[in-house]
Amino acid sequence: MHNPFFKNNGPFKISDILNILNLNNINLNIDHNIVDIKDLFTSNINEITFFHSRKYKDIAKNTKASFCITTENLKNDLNKDCKPIIVNNVLVSTSIVTAKFYPDSINDNFDDTVNDIIDTEFKNKIKFGKNVLVGENIKFGNNCSIGHNSIIEKNVSIGNNCSIGSNCIIRNSYIKDNVKILDNCIIGKQGFGFFPNDSKNLRYPHIGIVVIEDNCEIGCGATIDRGSMSNTIIGKNTFLDNQIHIAHNVKIGENTIIAGQVGIAGSTTIGNNVRIGGQAGISGHLKIGNNVEIAGGSGVIKNIANDSKVMGYPAKNIREFLKENK
Amino acid sequence: MHNPFFKNNGPFKISDILNILNLNNINLNIDHNIVDIKDLFTSNINEITFFHSRKYKDIAKNTKASFCITTENLKNDLNKDCKPIIVNNVLVSTSIVTAKFYPDSINDNFDDTVNDIIDTEFKNKIKFGKNVLVGENIKFGNNCSIGHNSIIEKNVSIGNNCSIGSNCIIRNSYIKDNVKILDNCIIGKQGFGFFPNDSKNLRYPHIGIVVIEDNCEIGCGATIDRGSMSNTIIGKNTFLDNQIHIAHNVKIGENTIIAGQVGIAGSTTIGNNVRIGGQAGISGHLKIGNNVEIAGGSGVIKNIANDSKVMGYPAKNIREFLKENK
Amino acid sequence: MHNPFFKNNGPFKISDILNILNLNNINLNIDHNIVDIKDLFTSNINEITFFHSRKYKDIAKNTKASFCITTENLKNDLNKDCKPIIVNNVLVSTSIVTAKFYPDSINDNFDDTVNDIIDTEFKNKIKFGKNVLVGENIKFGNNCSIGHNSIIEKNVSIGNNCSIGSNCIIRNSYIKDNVKILDNCIIGKQGFGFFPNDSKNLRYPHIGIVVIEDNCEIGCGATIDRGSMSNTIIGKNTFLDNQIHIAHNVKIGENTIIAGQVGIAGSTTIGNNVRIGGQAGISGHLKIGNNVEIAGGSGVIKNIANDSKVMGYPAKNIREFLKENK
Repeated sequence: MHNPFFKNNGPFKISDILNILNLNNINLNIDHNIVDIKDLFTSNINEITFFHSRKYKDIAKNTKASFCITTENLKNDLNKDCKPIIVNNVLVSTSIVTAKFYPDSINDNFDDTVNDIIDTEFKNKIKFGKNVLVGENIKFGNNCSIGHNSIIEKNVSIGNNCSIGSNCIIRNSYIKDNVKILDNCIIGKQGFGFFPNDSKNLRYPHIGIVVIEDNCEIGCGATIDRGSMSNTIIGKNTFLDNQIHIAHNVKIGENTIIAGQVGIAGSTTIGNNVRIGGQAGISGHLKIGNNVEIAGGSGVIKNIANDSKVMGYPAKNIREFLKENK
Repeated sequence: MHNPFFKNNGPFKISDILNILNLNNINLNIDHNIVDIKDLFTSNINEITFFHSRKYKDIAKNTKASFCITTENLKNDLNKDCKPIIVNNVLVSTSIVTAKFYPDSINDNFDDTVNDIIDTEFKNKIKFGKNVLVGENIKFGNNCSIGHNSIIEKNVSIGNNCSIGSNCIIRNSYIKDNVKILDNCIIGKQGFGFFPNDSKNLRYPHIGIVVIEDNCEIGCGATIDRGSMSNTIIGKNTFLDNQIHIAHNVKIGENTIIAGQVGIAGSTTIGNNVRIGGQAGISGHLKIGNNVEIAGGSGVIKNIANDSKVMGYPAKNIREFLKENK
Repeated sequence: MHNPFFKNNGPFKISDILNILNLNNINLNIDHNIVDIKDLFTSNINEITFFHSRKYKDIAKNTKASFCITTENLKNDLNKDCKPIIVNNVLVSTSIVTAKFYPDSINDNFDDTVNDIIDTEFKNKIKFGKNVLVGENIKFGNNCSIGHNSIIEKNVSIGNNCSIGSNCIIRNSYIKDNVKILDNCIIGKQGFGFFPNDSKNLRYPHIGIVVIEDNCEIGCGATIDRGSMSNTIIGKNTFLDNQIHIAHNVKIGENTIIAGQVGIAGSTTIGNNVRIGGQAGISGHLKIGNNVEIAGGSGVIKNIANDSKVMGYPAKNIREFLKENK
């Protein structure tokens, strides 16, 4: 599921896109219509994509996109049917083009379209506390409850038998069945993603959402940010304790248990049946396998293979760590 | 003080208890009335208890309970006057029986019995902000204040001269005199306790409460979970900084000072006059003595004797740690 | 900028000050008027200051204050024009005198002077959500927004083009232009500062404020405490991720980026263009230079020079750390 919530303002002619990037004299069919912007893997014909690191060259060779924002150095690794658009900074240019397609995705101010739930169609459908607010484009399944002062901003789908606590703020999220979200959680805000700039950092768009699968429990005070170009996902029957931070684009598998105050940095993938002890931290862009155990307080800075048990900072084999630290 | 808040739905006949555990053909007086379920140490005649680890065999030998949920392997360590009820998984069975006695303790959804404080007897007794909600079975001493948007759910007793901040949620808690609870705290929710199960984890009941003794201060954004079979306790004149997590069944002594972002895992005991630096983490089921100093950022994974100073991960003698890490 | 918000109840005669400190028989002009209390460096003629550690003897030699709370041991290091007031515990006495000048600075209970924004002059000036409360002595620039349930308590100045999220609580703060404060932040409460005392810890006053310079972003769930005798400052274009704790008197430079769950202890100074990875912790009273990189999860316990890259606990040169921990 990709981007069900943000309105795509396209299509745009390629000339419009070259214009906002201040590119001229490029030998392209300027009337070609571009319908969407996606990553190298998911993009299709008549869409534009981006290619900024040689790490992705195998995917670049097979992309189906019609156009690609990239650099002089990388352009030869691109599928021959995909036309390169050469820029100095691929990520900044991608950010500008994404904002053109999805202008709503870059402004994360509070949702001023919400209404008191008493004045909405949900009044008789769900059980709710005092001062509950709901925005536009919201769905609720059967047998749900929402605690006091919680705000379901626009673009949220909640399944059956879900319980949302008090003082929660949820937006841009797809929550499935039998999910419990405890008090004070903030789910679906944009991630901590921007291009540093000495006078004013430049925010990039977050067109992904947060997906929480069946039977999950999210502890008090969690912050789960939505994805930038993909989704942030919490797999089935995964339980999170209090005060946990899940950054943008993180994917967590099924039946995983995460203790209090853990932080998982952006774009990391965690497998199934993983156990993570309290206060552990996991760096960004890592792959943690299935059935992994990470001891409380560990700092994980590289990939962890299936069935491993690790501890320490940097996290290593737990037996080795304990032997060295007797 | 044990469990003053949750309604005990018992007594139950022992036959009722065997039924919900799917046990037949057990040679017991099936009409015997059981009045409560408690741990090995506090249970009494006509009560049921549980015994799941040989660690507790000395207590098991002296328990006063009439019945005990246990295993074939452990039953011979039990007081001869206490009748064993043999099961495969002691904790799961205990969880099922506890839920029968205290069905209210397993559902932690928002309290839908609350009223705006303006419509209650407390209107003229305490000073309060806008949008304050109070539930059933609440007591307040003299000279208390509660900030805006705070919710005192059911089963809370607050002493004299207490100040509760704004955006707090408190339930199932006994708060004594001169206590300050700062903004955004969540106190008294059930702990992160469940039996992992591949399709749907099984929550166990939390019939304990949170006790906060005289003169304490709890910093902003704390989460202090109530106990499962015992209470979570913060001793007299203990001060907690911001963003601290205290898990279920933790007991903290008097005059202890805990800096920001510390996490203490379930069932750990902390002594008097302890100093814990920022971001330190303490594993579960440990005993930290009196007058202990734990340096900021440390990870404590074993018991710490009285008067020790520790640092590092795993935490060790602070001089040794600093010598090794010059 | 020093202390623009708290009302100074002075001037007081020096005899009044000696009285509350229970000091008699001191050979001073008891009618001398004292207009304010400040630190050694910023205090001026007809003001009182304090000097409690030999570390500050160079500043003490040049202080312009007329009186100084200090000890027998330190008094000879004081400027000869500054009259010493000898006490047993300098910080406790300073705390008592500060509370006399600024009684409002010691009570951090919720602000009961707030009104629903709909009933204020800001109704037509800014965009606001439901249930927004504003206190006395508040300023807003143009083009600002405040989310649902947020509380701007007394003594807050907010510049142009600022966006405050939902569920925020802000007091005693000076927020400049183009600042974004995301949901659930608590900014401007007093810091975790007190004198431990076996029966009841003694809070000391916090007469500083929080200053957030232009173009900053403060992530969800931050706690930024105001200063005690100086201000807590976040420099221009500095971005903070979610769940960060900034203690009292911390000063952070410009263009600095701080990832999720970082904690910075009291009175530490951070330079410009610093990068701090997730969950890193920095002890109090340290000086971190410009262009420093601190890896995620690090524990910094000493000063860091400009342009350094550090990692580990205790944090050291990153190359050295990685070599030792392969």
